[in-house]
Amino acid sequence: MKYYTQFENKSLADQLIQKALEYKKAPLSDNNLGRGKRIGLLFLNPSLRTRVSTQIAASNLGMESIVLNMDKESWALEMEDGVIMNQGKAEHIRDAAGVLGSYFDILALRAFPSLTNKDEDSEDFILHQFAKHSGLPLISLESAIRHPLQSLADMVTIQEHKQKEKPKVVLTWAPHIKAIPHAVANSFAEWSIGCGHDVTITHPEGYELDERFTQGATIEHDQDKALANADFVYVKNWSAFNEYGKILCTDESWMLNEQKLSQAPNAKVMHCLPVRRNVELSDEILDGPRSLVQHQAKNRVFAAQAALSELLK
Amino acid sequence: MKYYTQFENKSLADQLIQKALEYKKAPLSDNNLGRGKRIGLLFLNPSLRTRVSTQIAASNLGMESIVLNMDKESWALEMEDGVIMNQGKAEHIRDAAGVLGSYFDILALRAFPSLTNKDEDSEDFILHQFAKHSGLPLISLESAIRHPLQSLADMVTIQEHKQKEKPKVVLTWAPHIKAIPHAVANSFAEWSIGCGHDVTITHPEGYELDERFTQGATIEHDQDKALANADFVYVKNWSAFNEYGKILCTDESWMLNEQKLSQAPNAKVMHCLPVRRNVELSDEILDGPRSLVQHQAKNRVFAAQAALSELLK
Amino acid sequence: MKYYTQFENKSLADQLIQKALEYKKAPLSDNNLGRGKRIGLLFLNPSLRTRVSTQIAASNLGMESIVLNMDKESWALEMEDGVIMNQGKAEHIRDAAGVLGSYFDILALRAFPSLTNKDEDSEDFILHQFAKHSGLPLISLESAIRHPLQSLADMVTIQEHKQKEKPKVVLTWAPHIKAIPHAVANSFAEWSIGCGHDVTITHPEGYELDERFTQGATIEHDQDKALANADFVYVKNWSAFNEYGKILCTDESWMLNEQKLSQAPNAKVMHCLPVRRNVELSDEILDGPRSLVQHQAKNRVFAAQAALSELLK
Repeated sequence: MKYYTQFENKSLADQLIQKALEYKKAPLSDNNLGRGKRIGLLFLNPSLRTRVSTQIAASNLGMESIVLNMDKESWALEMEDGVIMNQGKAEHIRDAAGVLGSYFDILALRAFPSLTNKDEDSEDFILHQFAKHSGLPLISLESAIRHPLQSLADMVTIQEHKQKEKPKVVLTWAPHIKAIPHAVANSFAEWSIGCGHDVTITHPEGYELDERFTQGATIEHDQDKALANADFVYVKNWSAFNEYGKILCTDESWMLNEQKLSQAPNAKVMHCLPVRRNVELSDEILDGPRSLVQHQAKNRVFAAQAALSELLK
Repeated sequence: MKYYTQFENKSLADQLIQKALEYKKAPLSDNNLGRGKRIGLLFLNPSLRTRVSTQIAASNLGMESIVLNMDKESWALEMEDGVIMNQGKAEHIRDAAGVLGSYFDILALRAFPSLTNKDEDSEDFILHQFAKHSGLPLISLESAIRHPLQSLADMVTIQEHKQKEKPKVVLTWAPHIKAIPHAVANSFAEWSIGCGHDVTITHPEGYELDERFTQGATIEHDQDKALANADFVYVKNWSAFNEYGKILCTDESWMLNEQKLSQAPNAKVMHCLPVRRNVELSDEILDGPRSLVQHQAKNRVFAAQAALSELLK
Repeated sequence: MKYYTQFENKSLADQLIQKALEYKKAPLSDNNLGRGKRIGLLFLNPSLRTRVSTQIAASNLGMESIVLNMDKESWALEMEDGVIMNQGKAEHIRDAAGVLGSYFDILALRAFPSLTNKDEDSEDFILHQFAKHSGLPLISLESAIRHPLQSLADMVTIQEHKQKEKPKVVLTWAPHIKAIPHAVANSFAEWSIGCGHDVTITHPEGYELDERFTQGATIEHDQDKALANADFVYVKNWSAFNEYGKILCTDESWMLNEQKLSQAPNAKVMHCLPVRRNVELSDEILDGPRSLVQHQAKNRVFAAQAALSELLK
């Protein structure tokens, strides 16, 4: 069983980044690779970029994709083994994943965390249940703890814009009105460290990420210090990990704006979108020359295409 | 006007079963049959297996399919003729079916029963309104009273696994927490009897199905007696038909488990899915060697493909 | 930037009508025109005809279409610039439209009016925001103030059924239980006047449409007088424009029925659907020989195909 949920090693990452850049130049260069194959795109949560970019990536490879919004079009899924199913959930993931496994060649799944059950989320319970019971190669379209196709697209974007071999990359926490999952922050840290960037993570006290993803990064609670001389600043909110799913800080001064970047004149700013404008990040940055957010979004197509082509080989 | 809502005769059933088995071996053997044709897959209710398997079947035949979740993406439909439409329903089935009839070559429709209006449900009112006003060949994706593509897939599965010419097939009622339609039970009985199996139906008193579907079956209220020496056991809940749509029995001892099959050592167990685990059927059976549920689900593709190819000829 | 939101001039209209009629005879005659192109069909509101007919039109031209029900599958959109996004809306139209603009070659958008903000609706705020921030050719699938593909289909239908060069075309207000947008009425008036028909608009006092769309039409508050000798009667409800979004009249006698057409023996009756039967229009007309509603709906495919082929050239 083979599935894309994590950063494997720098060599594979470099290869995927190169492949994505090649597809960006020639999207249809492998348009027979997926001929006769079908991918099921399964969503337990909303999606815009992820769904459309993966459909286009599949199509560029000649593969048929079928989208299923399982939270809306199908039956509510029971994830726990051994339960007596006498409540609201109509179908068990064992049965649904087994069936989908027999209909497709590859599955791709979006399954956000509960943010209430730290243990289950931390072991990526839903993703692993799907992988196990479908028996198919599975691509994560954002799971409880990782968003690998986003991170691959982010690495492609950094590769395109970096001016030095080992850029200073800062992941900065930003305010938000809701409790947000850790997947994007985790994956970005994991990939950026793995790709050999000089990574600093800055956040208010109490917002420490799961250490599995941040080994090798500098943790700096003073945001101004962290941002100084940054080449890339990745802005993202996440809820607390230790006090799981809690909002501990609503300090608006953590929002990134131009003034905060005065010590980082060349910094490019990144965000995975959707972004809360003027809450996480100011309009002036998003609509100005520093912003790479549209580049990141466009690169989602080629990142997905590179990952799919790797699975198809 | 030609549409698949019922078992026609043993000869056609045998032919469809054979065709489905051929497609299982060579799914793309007729991949030009539907070239240039379009099928509209219309859902008034949720679906997982039915939607995806029919899309794949159409694609295997080279036909374009367009899915429309009419309950969510479109306008609420008025089904009754002659009414003054000054309530919540925005469009009449006459108009919607007419339009869809002009856009497609074949329609397929899922329309569950109300379970409140026995007369309308019993005459398959919504299905017939769609067929009449669209003027197109119509495939039922489960109507108020039948689920023919499920039953065809079930017959294919029995054909693959039977050890004797005339197997003993038992349809057993199972508990459920909700009032469930009769369509799967009706169709399974109709097809299994029609295919010449030795059919026994077992259920608590008061759960008699509509006699149109059970002529030729043995009715046995003692579940243990019914199960003895069974070759295939089809597990399914349904609500009462006479006291229409009511739940009359919640006796958990009707749940099928291994202990109940002690007198049927070779019995294979079937269910159409979604199944309420440990309510209708125990985990031990579903995850054990007796279970055919994944085979049935996989055969949905080839059953749909056989039915579509019959309509396309 | 090129987009279809309005009637341009009679010469282009005639050309589009001709093209649509050609496609009706030979739907696949240009089936390579869109090869390798992708259209995103974006819906902020429900749809039946519009969605399916545009998908089929794109397919007839060899173009790939991807449907996104943005109101259900994706993130709620903030439309206003400069706001602090600390409320329910998760993504700004600037960002979403930019991303979609990078994924597709053409966009098509359905965005109904608020009916509460007259100024924003009147300047077609959402449509223009999408067009501006996507940077792509944009087809309106009904905006706050226009429904051009419907009107083009209506012109095609009149062209097919007219008995004289300059037919008398009457747009008549009809009762409804809800406050309904002005888009269909506006566009129909604009196109019908622009195509050189003899146009009369009849409605209760207070239901005057925005004058930008009705210049050149006769306004007649006496419905009977308006209907006399009509060749085509277009039935449609709309809410008040001056007292914006209000329901001022619930007089059931404005419903069109056969008796009202006694002075217009040859009148054909049109409606864009969905229609409230026996509220806007009687069953006797809808199910009788005067009705063109199914012709209009069928022509939606070829109108969309003509508009798309114009954009693809």
